[in-house]
Amino acid sequence: MPQAPFVPVIPAGGAGTRLWPLSRRARPKFLLDLTGEGRSLLQRTLDRLGPLSDRPPIVVTGIAHEHAVREQLPAPDAARVVAEPSARNSMPAIALAAALVEREEPEAVIGSFAADHLIEDEESFARAVAIARDAAELGYLVTLGIAPTHPATGFGYIERSLDPEDGDESLRATGALPVARFVEKPDLARAEQFLATGRHLWNAGMFVARASVLLDELADQIPPLARGAREIAAAHDTEKYGAVLERLWPRLTAIAIDHALAEPLAAAGKVAVVPTVFDWDDVGDFAAVARQLRARASGGATAPGRDDVQVLGSADVDAVSSRATVYGSTDRHIALVGLDGISIVDTEDALLVLADEQAQDLSTLVARLDERGLGRLR
Amino acid sequence: MPQAPFVPVIPAGGAGTRLWPLSRRARPKFLLDLTGEGRSLLQRTLDRLGPLSDRPPIVVTGIAHEHAVREQLPAPDAARVVAEPSARNSMPAIALAAALVEREEPEAVIGSFAADHLIEDEESFARAVAIARDAAELGYLVTLGIAPTHPATGFGYIERSLDPEDGDESLRATGALPVARFVEKPDLARAEQFLATGRHLWNAGMFVARASVLLDELADQIPPLARGAREIAAAHDTEKYGAVLERLWPRLTAIAIDHALAEPLAAAGKVAVVPTVFDWDDVGDFAAVARQLRARASGGATAPGRDDVQVLGSADVDAVSSRATVYGSTDRHIALVGLDGISIVDTEDALLVLADEQAQDLSTLVARLDERGLGRLR
Repeated sequence: MPQAPFVPVIPAGGAGTRLWPLSRRARPKFLLDLTGEGRSLLQRTLDRLGPLSDRPPIVVTGIAHEHAVREQLPAPDAARVVAEPSARNSMPAIALAAALVEREEPEAVIGSFAADHLIEDEESFARAVAIARDAAELGYLVTLGIAPTHPATGFGYIERSLDPEDGDESLRATGALPVARFVEKPDLARAEQFLATGRHLWNAGMFVARASVLLDELADQIPPLARGAREIAAAHDTEKYGAVLERLWPRLTAIAIDHALAEPLAAAGKVAVVPTVFDWDDVGDFAAVARQLRARASGGATAPGRDDVQVLGSADVDAVSSRATVYGSTDRHIALVGLDGISIVDTEDALLVLADEQAQDLSTLVARLDERGLGRLR
Repeated sequence: MPQAPFVPVIPAGGAGTRLWPLSRRARPKFLLDLTGEGRSLLQRTLDRLGPLSDRPPIVVTGIAHEHAVREQLPAPDAARVVAEPSARNSMPAIALAAALVEREEPEAVIGSFAADHLIEDEESFARAVAIARDAAELGYLVTLGIAPTHPATGFGYIERSLDPEDGDESLRATGALPVARFVEKPDLARAEQFLATGRHLWNAGMFVARASVLLDELADQIPPLARGAREIAAAHDTEKYGAVLERLWPRLTAIAIDHALAEPLAAAGKVAVVPTVFDWDDVGDFAAVARQLRARASGGATAPGRDDVQVLGSADVDAVSSRATVYGSTDRHIALVGLDGISIVDTEDALLVLADEQAQDLSTLVARLDERGLGRLR
């Protein structure tokens, strides 16, 4: 059983473009209820982590979303909300949270989990986190690796060590495994190879480590970043915090934890992975949302006359011979005829009609909103 | 060359449900510009018939659309507009127009043409009308039959007489042919047989006859209908016209000209057909509109980045990998991803997304608007 207190860290940032116009800069994915069950992805993340936490989780979010995040908390003290003055990728956010934890409880273990992913099997998740905590107490940077179910090209992969005797005995006792390396998103041929090896797991961006280990390792890799995070944390709860944050935050290296820590530490044998089997979904595009809604018997209202039209929002939908997903909150009546695998997002200022099979291509359209003078729609 | 004056009659009624929500009860198909060329179907019909007319065409329309019809006329005297107090199918409308013409010029020939069909090859159409006028002067009810290009199941058919010696010599001299019978919309197997015989033509609902012949034949078939139409016409331009119309119109038999006259007269050898080759389109559903828009090099603005997204209306559309048709006049930005053969109609109170292949099924949805308490959207 882990002894050190466990503090979840939830970086809640990233204005994804693949759920536009449902998600916007002002209303990012983690604030949305994408399962029709009345809970946003952030709320579900807090629900899932709450029972595993020894201290309130720390949500690190953009200053523009601080208010919305606080409004979604089940109680004001259900989480600590840390506002970033600007988005500087995941490492500064996690480092600052780690430094805040370290300052109060140097031995504590933190676990960083995205605010906008879905995990259904919470028991299995809890077991994986317990193993990760054990391994983290040994000094490892621990990641949770998802057993791949298909040759996905949209995720990075974690390659387990080849030699079953790799890693020290105490690590093997936890159930975690040494990581050989992290691999960037592969093409389909490589993804198929990965699936065949049985040694590759999806990188879901979940990292567990002692706060002090994480910061000490970061101090080796990118000293100013670790130093800056610790300096900001030292000013926390003092009247100069705002000024220190404003001064130091913009200087912190904008980098993802994968590049800053996970990759170099894996090469040094300091990363372990907990292979997991829970069903994880990053709900990365409308095809994923459609799958989620369809998988929920009770989720999403079903349009009359057809049982494979999923409706998210208050939209009034009628359909003939259609398999579709509708997101709508306008007063407009929505009629569908003969659609197969189509998602429709009806908002006041933008309408999207998308073939789920090509859901990834949405980024192209969103990227050119600005050049078309429609930046206000992002 | 025909001698009798020619007066086109344009019944402009019928609230089609297969172009909803573009067409509505208050804004039926004939008032719409469905080709993106700035002319409604009614205006194009008037443009086409104007040069062939010896008198201003008579547009017979519902009282609710009288104002809109007058607004679309190129000049106030470009057509006579007759308002029906209620819709009673095509025969009363045509009979009333015939009676108005007969009262002024008993020998005149009328030609009834739908207000909401498209004909591109106007020269070929003009030649067919000239032949029809010749045959009409001989006392025939003459119809224009369209050479079928595929085994359509959505149209009725006209079967030419089997024997080439049928019909009198003077009819044969005009180029028109005797009609054996009219056939209701067939199933696909029969439609394929029809195509194979070479004797079947599409019934486009175009009828040409002397006004007095039409009314005399109607007086044989449905005496009260002919009598009522002539009585209303007799009151025209008098101060009691309104009262007479109000009193008699509701009593006129509500029936289509096909059933009232064409079918029984064909059996009596009194119907002739002019086989035509012009490209006729009843623009009966969104699949047809999409075909029309696509066929027009200059028709419909093309969305940037793709050349097979047709836009009708002022909608601002951006698309990736899509073949689609968009009808939109709202301020909303419309984004399309990966669509193939989809029509989108974006209006303030209703949104339709439809697979062109199943365009016919739209009627089902429109029919149940009332039972869903959405009759206001029709």
